[in-house]
Amino acid sequence: MSTAIAHAAILLIHCPDRKGLVAAVTRFLAEHNGNILEIDQHVDKAHNVFFMRAKWDLEGFELPENRIAEEFQQAIAEPLDLTWQLYFTKNIPRMAVFVSKYAHCLHDVLARYSSGEWTVEIPLIISNHEDLRPLAEKYDIDYHHIPVTRDTKPQAEQLQLELLREHDIDFIVLARYMQILTADFVAKYPARIINIHHSFLPAFPGAKPYHSAYNKGVKVIGATSHYVTEKLDEGPIIEQDVIHVNHRHAVEDLVRKGRDLEKIVLSRAIWNHLQRKTLVFENRTIVFR
Amino acid sequence: MSTAIAHAAILLIHCPDRKGLVAAVTRFLAEHNGNILEIDQHVDKAHNVFFMRAKWDLEGFELPENRIAEEFQQAIAEPLDLTWQLYFTKNIPRMAVFVSKYAHCLHDVLARYSSGEWTVEIPLIISNHEDLRPLAEKYDIDYHHIPVTRDTKPQAEQLQLELLREHDIDFIVLARYMQILTADFVAKYPARIINIHHSFLPAFPGAKPYHSAYNKGVKVIGATSHYVTEKLDEGPIIEQDVIHVNHRHAVEDLVRKGRDLEKIVLSRAIWNHLQRKTLVFENRTIVFR
Amino acid sequence: MSTAIAHAAILLIHCPDRKGLVAAVTRFLAEHNGNILEIDQHVDKAHNVFFMRAKWDLEGFELPENRIAEEFQQAIAEPLDLTWQLYFTKNIPRMAVFVSKYAHCLHDVLARYSSGEWTVEIPLIISNHEDLRPLAEKYDIDYHHIPVTRDTKPQAEQLQLELLREHDIDFIVLARYMQILTADFVAKYPARIINIHHSFLPAFPGAKPYHSAYNKGVKVIGATSHYVTEKLDEGPIIEQDVIHVNHRHAVEDLVRKGRDLEKIVLSRAIWNHLQRKTLVFENRTIVFR
Amino acid sequence: MSTAIAHAAILLIHCPDRKGLVAAVTRFLAEHNGNILEIDQHVDKAHNVFFMRAKWDLEGFELPENRIAEEFQQAIAEPLDLTWQLYFTKNIPRMAVFVSKYAHCLHDVLARYSSGEWTVEIPLIISNHEDLRPLAEKYDIDYHHIPVTRDTKPQAEQLQLELLREHDIDFIVLARYMQILTADFVAKYPARIINIHHSFLPAFPGAKPYHSAYNKGVKVIGATSHYVTEKLDEGPIIEQDVIHVNHRHAVEDLVRKGRDLEKIVLSRAIWNHLQRKTLVFENRTIVFR
Repeated sequence: MSTAIAHAAILLIHCPDRKGLVAAVTRFLAEHNGNILEIDQHVDKAHNVFFMRAKWDLEGFELPENRIAEEFQQAIAEPLDLTWQLYFTKNIPRMAVFVSKYAHCLHDVLARYSSGEWTVEIPLIISNHEDLRPLAEKYDIDYHHIPVTRDTKPQAEQLQLELLREHDIDFIVLARYMQILTADFVAKYPARIINIHHSFLPAFPGAKPYHSAYNKGVKVIGATSHYVTEKLDEGPIIEQDVIHVNHRHAVEDLVRKGRDLEKIVLSRAIWNHLQRKTLVFENRTIVFR
Repeated sequence: MSTAIAHAAILLIHCPDRKGLVAAVTRFLAEHNGNILEIDQHVDKAHNVFFMRAKWDLEGFELPENRIAEEFQQAIAEPLDLTWQLYFTKNIPRMAVFVSKYAHCLHDVLARYSSGEWTVEIPLIISNHEDLRPLAEKYDIDYHHIPVTRDTKPQAEQLQLELLREHDIDFIVLARYMQILTADFVAKYPARIINIHHSFLPAFPGAKPYHSAYNKGVKVIGATSHYVTEKLDEGPIIEQDVIHVNHRHAVEDLVRKGRDLEKIVLSRAIWNHLQRKTLVFENRTIVFR
Repeated sequence: MSTAIAHAAILLIHCPDRKGLVAAVTRFLAEHNGNILEIDQHVDKAHNVFFMRAKWDLEGFELPENRIAEEFQQAIAEPLDLTWQLYFTKNIPRMAVFVSKYAHCLHDVLARYSSGEWTVEIPLIISNHEDLRPLAEKYDIDYHHIPVTRDTKPQAEQLQLELLREHDIDFIVLARYMQILTADFVAKYPARIINIHHSFLPAFPGAKPYHSAYNKGVKVIGATSHYVTEKLDEGPIIEQDVIHVNHRHAVEDLVRKGRDLEKIVLSRAIWNHLQRKTLVFENRTIVFR
Repeated sequence: MSTAIAHAAILLIHCPDRKGLVAAVTRFLAEHNGNILEIDQHVDKAHNVFFMRAKWDLEGFELPENRIAEEFQQAIAEPLDLTWQLYFTKNIPRMAVFVSKYAHCLHDVLARYSSGEWTVEIPLIISNHEDLRPLAEKYDIDYHHIPVTRDTKPQAEQLQLELLREHDIDFIVLARYMQILTADFVAKYPARIINIHHSFLPAFPGAKPYHSAYNKGVKVIGATSHYVTEKLDEGPIIEQDVIHVNHRHAVEDLVRKGRDLEKIVLSRAIWNHLQRKTLVFENRTIVFR
């Protein structure tokens, strides 16, 4: 879809399913002369829940931007018991990247950032190692080395949280960051920390998934991008992809091939997050089209 | 999506895009107490055309089935200048299969038919050869051998058309039928003849695409299912898929691997057609989700 | 690869890796004027094991067929400490199919069988249900209904084994057979029982994998064909493939899409087995090209 | 495969097929105590041509490196009429990159280069525009802006050729370079210029393939990496891959999704070229495993 619209609004909605929901929301937009740019909805019949995403042009929309939330709440959300979020495309999200030693995902993120593929700001990179500082410097991005050990993790996370606040960060991307975040940390960024795991989850969670895949003799390997929850490698999946392998591929070949999967899968997850196309419900991710 | 609903209605709509279309259609359904089962819409910004598919439960719908068309036309379609089609799921489509000598697509179609995967009737198989009669007989389906030569094609098509009328056929599947239909024949079943071509169109149209793919040294081969128009292998594409190959694959390997592609791709196209999820516009096929 | 050669021999070899193995085997074939049709080898560096498959034309080969094994053993295998198997393509493998109630894999197997895609005999179908008897009868294949309960499994397997012996069966295909074979049964057909599991193993072993995949919210589902060992769903994998899904797919959609994966993946595994392209080592399957 | 071997040799061979070729080559290596690391062969039955690639460890090999070519020529190649190339892994290939305005392929190439994924030197980037100079400077690589118009192309190519000679370049990668090279230029680097084309060739050659794909309504788009010959977009294909699309994807979405395909497909082609796994024959590329 076009991202060329100068200024648009996005509504993400969910509520118990019932008749007339699409009609109610679209009528609200139509009554204020809204030009719908993208619209998608889904009913989870197993849970009887309705989900909807609508994006509309604010050019010509007859409600002032600062009154949309209140009007929508009174006219639609309250009567119909909707849970909703409202975003304006003019507000550019601010993203922090956490890395360790592997460069490929960070390279890919920064290439997309610098070539303008994403509408995002990346003011901050945090790492538990020094290795990727030169790469951050190529792009003039603040790089903070915060070592983490089992004993120092609470203090390290305090430092991280301060940096995130200072830089006014909206969401975090773990670009092959090899430390486990505490539940406390995760709770501060619900559905706002995106991880890339180097396997087709739920197969091969934890460390060294390529070794496990090799030993198991699988004929397909994968990568999984998901929101981080307090349970390691079990958060709601945003994106997955796979590639065929065979008995000739040594572990190092799986690692090499997997790198390309990891960076592509992570970038698709970030894209969907940036487009406000994701909505988490019951540990599954709705990814609107 | 569930196909378990006993009786539902499906609307396919397209019209010039403007504000309020989704609101108007969904309000029509809501006002008559319609429970929307599936809904999807798309705006082709290049042509400024709006497309929509809505499926709703007729249980509890407060318009009698035989008045829906008229009411929709007066209340919505005429004022808004919509082009539309209305289907009822209780009307089971009747499909004819045209074949020549290759069995794999017919096998696959009949397996799905006999195991109830599709809601369809298949009362008629027509072939320009005798080869597949035994297979038709396994499933107790009328099999008509109508030889076709360049000189006899008009008469052959007359016979075919009579059989189609006699069996009250709604749409035709060319399951590796190796004869080209005339423009006259095609004109009688617009967007109602589904072909499977054994290449990734527009690459390798015409005869012997696997030989061409081999000679070209491609690393991927494909299959394409499309609606038949008067231009050979140029009709609007419904479904495509591909498989990786390499220099080791001889033409006969491509043929063998391609068979699996052909039957799967054809079956997906038939599934979408049966679900009334396809809408042809400007030689492209909208395939609603 | 061409299957048009009237009569060929196939050697499958493995042994500790060392220098000169390819030279020794290919020289043996060359010295007897053998025309190599296919050759592939692999070194598992982690285990330091050499694997090789060679297929050669027996036309013009200067060793009589009945002396090849002995000569190869004396001249090559004994001095070099090779483990090997020898097959002749004129000996057509005899395959039994075990099924329960799902028809799609059996349909696909029988379609390939009857259209001559595979060089195999299928004289026997065994099921713990009556449901698929009509399908077996379409193809005139013996169908034996052997009910299985926890208590009667030993007796049921005795009956099965007798039928397998009577029909001189070489290998067994479990085409969605929903009973677990005992270790005793499995031990009688090592690397000769092929199962299709309806998930991307090791994710979602056991029953109802599509339900588990739905609940987990995966974005890709798979199917896995493997040799059966005494550990359920853990045997060496022969073939896997996957398909993308999303939050819109209900369990029944996963089941429907999965059926196509299952039958294609199973058929590829059977193809490789029939071509003598598979060799099991340390719970992994070498699949020669 | 492992790239950890300090110093190895690679032979690429082709010749008319006949009996005993594998035996002859592998015996030559065995007689000099060569430890084969990788070996692959293929017979093109349509053309009756034999192809082989062998890589062996030079540690312990009993022929001095500077005598291998002569010995092989006398002992094997001349008697058997082989055409062959010999490479030593210690000689690191030198690659030039030609670019225009699109950054994504160059980003990807430089990321792999700087993180040591490839064993290659990249001393030179040439462009007909200034746009990507800052990116080249991030990696301290010589960047030469050589404008090209129809009239100045001969002079421009002279400048390019001089730079290639000065930098001792072995092969060239066209990373979305939007100028057509002359036949004279191409003739100087046979099978040594790698292009990435943004479609699944032979579909949509020439300019604006994403627009053509959109207009055609294809359900799959692709990218193709090939060696450049004097016929535009018709050189022997090294690597292809595809991604599914649908009617919702505007041209700009195809462009965005295609970028990821382009960079991955190009990188796989470069990898195979660097590993000396490619051999061109009759406008098809053998890609050894």
